[in-house]
Amino acid sequence: MLRPRSGIQQWVAREAYTLSPSVPVEEYTDIFGNLYQRLVAPAGWFQVHTSADVMTADVVDKAPGAYFVEIQHLPDAVLSYLLPSRYCESDRFGNLARDIVDGTSLGYDQVGRISDWIRDSVRYTPGSSVLPLSAVEVNGWSQGVCRDLAHLGIALSRSISIPTRLVVGFLYGLEPMDLHAWFEAYVGGLWYTFDPSEDTLRGGRLAVAYGRDAADVAVYHQFGPPAIFSSMDVRVELLDGPPG
Amino acid sequence: MLRPRSGIQQWVAREAYTLSPSVPVEEYTDIFGNLYQRLVAPAGWFQVHTSADVMTADVVDKAPGAYFVEIQHLPDAVLSYLLPSRYCESDRFGNLARDIVDGTSLGYDQVGRISDWIRDSVRYTPGSSVLPLSAVEVNGWSQGVCRDLAHLGIALSRSISIPTRLVVGFLYGLEPMDLHAWFEAYVGGLWYTFDPSEDTLRGGRLAVAYGRDAADVAVYHQFGPPAIFSSMDVRVELLDGPPG
Amino acid sequence: MLRPRSGIQQWVAREAYTLSPSVPVEEYTDIFGNLYQRLVAPAGWFQVHTSADVMTADVVDKAPGAYFVEIQHLPDAVLSYLLPSRYCESDRFGNLARDIVDGTSLGYDQVGRISDWIRDSVRYTPGSSVLPLSAVEVNGWSQGVCRDLAHLGIALSRSISIPTRLVVGFLYGLEPMDLHAWFEAYVGGLWYTFDPSEDTLRGGRLAVAYGRDAADVAVYHQFGPPAIFSSMDVRVELLDGPPG
Amino acid sequence: MLRPRSGIQQWVAREAYTLSPSVPVEEYTDIFGNLYQRLVAPAGWFQVHTSADVMTADVVDKAPGAYFVEIQHLPDAVLSYLLPSRYCESDRFGNLARDIVDGTSLGYDQVGRISDWIRDSVRYTPGSSVLPLSAVEVNGWSQGVCRDLAHLGIALSRSISIPTRLVVGFLYGLEPMDLHAWFEAYVGGLWYTFDPSEDTLRGGRLAVAYGRDAADVAVYHQFGPPAIFSSMDVRVELLDGPPG
Repeated sequence: MLRPRSGIQQWVAREAYTLSPSVPVEEYTDIFGNLYQRLVAPAGWFQVHTSADVMTADVVDKAPGAYFVEIQHLPDAVLSYLLPSRYCESDRFGNLARDIVDGTSLGYDQVGRISDWIRDSVRYTPGSSVLPLSAVEVNGWSQGVCRDLAHLGIALSRSISIPTRLVVGFLYGLEPMDLHAWFEAYVGGLWYTFDPSEDTLRGGRLAVAYGRDAADVAVYHQFGPPAIFSSMDVRVELLDGPPG
Repeated sequence: MLRPRSGIQQWVAREAYTLSPSVPVEEYTDIFGNLYQRLVAPAGWFQVHTSADVMTADVVDKAPGAYFVEIQHLPDAVLSYLLPSRYCESDRFGNLARDIVDGTSLGYDQVGRISDWIRDSVRYTPGSSVLPLSAVEVNGWSQGVCRDLAHLGIALSRSISIPTRLVVGFLYGLEPMDLHAWFEAYVGGLWYTFDPSEDTLRGGRLAVAYGRDAADVAVYHQFGPPAIFSSMDVRVELLDGPPG
Repeated sequence: MLRPRSGIQQWVAREAYTLSPSVPVEEYTDIFGNLYQRLVAPAGWFQVHTSADVMTADVVDKAPGAYFVEIQHLPDAVLSYLLPSRYCESDRFGNLARDIVDGTSLGYDQVGRISDWIRDSVRYTPGSSVLPLSAVEVNGWSQGVCRDLAHLGIALSRSISIPTRLVVGFLYGLEPMDLHAWFEAYVGGLWYTFDPSEDTLRGGRLAVAYGRDAADVAVYHQFGPPAIFSSMDVRVELLDGPPG
Repeated sequence: MLRPRSGIQQWVAREAYTLSPSVPVEEYTDIFGNLYQRLVAPAGWFQVHTSADVMTADVVDKAPGAYFVEIQHLPDAVLSYLLPSRYCESDRFGNLARDIVDGTSLGYDQVGRISDWIRDSVRYTPGSSVLPLSAVEVNGWSQGVCRDLAHLGIALSRSISIPTRLVVGFLYGLEPMDLHAWFEAYVGGLWYTFDPSEDTLRGGRLAVAYGRDAADVAVYHQFGPPAIFSSMDVRVELLDGPPG
């Protein structure tokens, strides 16, 4: 899952995707609208290289006060983001979530409060990731990578009936540079960005895939004899103005 | 999620679905093909009544020796049943699964071996259900209802790369009568039925919904002020021959 | 395509669908959300019987003045109802449509004007149908059955950029009773009912299938040796109050 | 509809898509799997530029003798390609088609015979296109552009129950160079390429979009004040080996 799509928030102006050695690939659209590629990697050294020029906003929309959407008014396509999922056991977090948002007005502000609480309560440890942790595990261990913090934010928000989804992609200026993950919440009739791993919510984001959690949007799922991961190199650069 | 659909294995000849008091309802098809209904229940006593005359086989197809489908040959629509899900943490079961199926030929026989192992190792406790348990929990506690046993079968099978899905429905002759749950595995190019809560795999099954696990196919998801569940009555009767 | 679905405008409370002799059937959902059934009919006499108790409104919503939705604001799912289709050659009707709606305010009123124009200009000849006629043919011959009139309404409306779709179903009190067809236009953010075969727009409608035109929503598509149609019997009765 | 997708028959290794001046665009997947882009073009001069490096076969698969797939064995997703559509009135061609394929074995050879018959009977007039013609019109006028010839091939094939679809894309070496259109037929369990505008079926094809006919896969649908088309420039070049 490495090919970004043009959408409301970003436009893919140029893109490249090459495999060395070259092998047959099939591409599909999953149930979340992500493009994914299926291939049988050859034995031996194998390289995947992708790059894209993408136009995206340099500030993120915020909407303090955006209203809570009552369940009966949620669009059909949003409903599956309310349910518990592999790494977001929202069915086990009701008490904690209600405690965190106590006194907060319904909707955007509740998710903002949850995101702040995670930033204060869970240590962000970039680079420490092996397997994805579930929200219950992240909460128990009080530390995690960006994806783990997002999982906790998702589980807490869903447990108070706010639809939330994981976004995997890139963030300009991230230190150290790596793939990044954050989450979006559906309030006020739109999806808004939250990122509990950051002190300030910055723009310059490129979404590659959306899903309920990391089980849906792994960069790759690998089956068969184990692949030995030799290196991954991630770069995000600012281009000059719109592509010509 | 209470309206069964006609499919390859069953034909819905008559059906009724009534609400008392009557309220507006919308019906949708989810990503797994299930029909589900959305409604706002009124305050006070509320009754849902459904019934169906369904033609279904009185024996279940078995296929000992059916081959393992290599990942690259799986149909696109089957892939999501390979991934870990809320109650089936297949990413945590690789060692146990490989141990159970050691020496078994790839495919149907592996799932059969897993189903037998669950029947021997986990105590089936009908009626004890409150919340769904995840496969990790079921394995730790060594007991569960039909749905919990199915979750464990699903997680173990997926961890050895066999697609599996949960089926919720009814089984003729089940004692005590209740909703039932079992699982299907995709081997030999088809979905086959497994039921670790039964000594013998019986026919007379009516599938109401399919999903990755109980998070997808709950009979109902309820939001808002808690509903007090006053009673549920389930009956399955054998009709005389095809409906006239 | 004979199994109605519950939707925003109707609720299927009871339903029956039987085949004599009984044969295996598979059921699918098409791209418009309709349920359809595939079967191989046996040689000899073959009967299909369906019935349903459906709750539906006894008046149809009208919305004079409802606004024209600009193309860029149409939901993605509505776009395909703007394009020309088999029996609705909207790419050949621009001049006529602009002439008919001249001076009318954009949106609902334009479609109302088109529907009135058809009622005045094309003779409604119930029962005369053999094959579906296309809008160009209906306009040339100035007569047709309900479906043909609806095709013309659809083609004219699309040619002025208003999304329209064909509805096949039943109408309480239709004389002579038969299957019926009408059309819906997307204006003011909703689908509204228009029926150029009627002087007054009556309620008591049961929709069985939606599509761009009759090519999408034939009651049946038959392939292979020709079936000889021996008889079709259609009845619509008013039931007493909500089903118990 | 200008962004090709990677699929079984082609791999998009590099791609660019730019608009001058730059405007917001949204991208969607239609019901046929094509990517399409929605945008509001500004008043004044507006340019769309796309390019792609695509790996595709230099010969086209042929399969003389490939069997006719009986309707009951057609995959669900293929069924809509059997029905008549806007420019392919297959419901009006039964007699002609049966006459053309008389004595030919069922399946691939029938479509081959139809394609040959069109090449012999309809004059290919590249560059003469204004609006798409329907198969009935093409047959009546006995001339047309590549797309018109493909429409006739589609209508004739569907009328003998063989699913067919239009492909819009590029063909290496086409003289004069332009967008190209051909059709595919579903026989022997696969989609095979036919091109009645060519004497010999050449490879070097890049598919941009699939649909039932040109109504589904127009390069652009334009609404609102008419755009004056100032120029279109199409180039297809052979690259050296797989991209590095």
